[in-house]
Amino acid sequence: MAEQPKDMLQPFDDASWAKLGELVARHRQAVLATLDGGAPYTAMVAYAPEPGFGAFLVHLSDLSAHKQHLRADPRVSLIVCEPDNGRTEILQHARVALACRAAIVAKGTDAHAAAKACYLARFPAHQMMFGLGDFDLVRLAPREGLMNAGFGRAFRVTPADLAAAAARAGQ
Amino acid sequence: MAEQPKDMLQPFDDASWAKLGELVARHRQAVLATLDGGAPYTAMVAYAPEPGFGAFLVHLSDLSAHKQHLRADPRVSLIVCEPDNGRTEILQHARVALACRAAIVAKGTDAHAAAKACYLARFPAHQMMFGLGDFDLVRLAPREGLMNAGFGRAFRVTPADLAAAAARAGQ
Repeated sequence: MAEQPKDMLQPFDDASWAKLGELVARHRQAVLATLDGGAPYTAMVAYAPEPGFGAFLVHLSDLSAHKQHLRADPRVSLIVCEPDNGRTEILQHARVALACRAAIVAKGTDAHAAAKACYLARFPAHQMMFGLGDFDLVRLAPREGLMNAGFGRAFRVTPADLAAAAARAGQ
Repeated sequence: MAEQPKDMLQPFDDASWAKLGELVARHRQAVLATLDGGAPYTAMVAYAPEPGFGAFLVHLSDLSAHKQHLRADPRVSLIVCEPDNGRTEILQHARVALACRAAIVAKGTDAHAAAKACYLARFPAHQMMFGLGDFDLVRLAPREGLMNAGFGRAFRVTPADLAAAAARAGQ
């Protein structure tokens, strides 16, 4: 009903790529899971997808425990859920969960300038946080994932699927 | 800005207990993080808080990877986020993340009957899933957690805080 073993997953189709693209492009809120001494830990994050959905950017303070966690172990999971509207059957809400590798973007590099521009395009009000020394952009690069688009509609997500979804969303 | 080291956390106050109670009582959608071979894994879940917020109930199929994970290692994290309304500054949305221990509720017990009644009171449409043999109620018992209620408003959450929040929410 929710996630399914890989041999029960459906092959991606065009409508599902479009749904994935819309899900990632439209929302701003995600949950990041990290390892806290080997145990799962969750935090809400604001995210910006890079063009082509090759990675997702988050902007984290040294004060956040999850930043300390991903420095110690870069294995993380990022999930974007269609927000509950309180009416639709709860398990019908679309979501995509992605196993990612996290890497802090080194300041003063071209990659940082590009990442900062991408992030601020989505969160212009966060400009002031780039003046705080303890914040870093963290790039979350997906390895694989799972999209659920409702009952019996589960799809394995590869980086190629994310690229296809980005193209369909004009990203 | 987001989570903070424990020595920067604020002591809980009455308004924050009320906010925590409202957050947990009002929403249905959460993210559950489990361990997938030692790496973090995330899935959207529907949850029902037990009276007094001593635990949170989820109803999982054997087909879900996260149920297999929590059978192998009961350490999980559950996070409830105020859904993004697309207008409020994104990091101002309230959320509570709870480190929990997961245990499957044995069928045919009084505890199962009570848990089932609690779950169905919140999700009456899920009655039919109780007829499917591969579903189990899983009880997530919080050990500690963190609530963020906006900039600089982070609170460590104990089981006693959850009980206080439940009382204020009339739960």
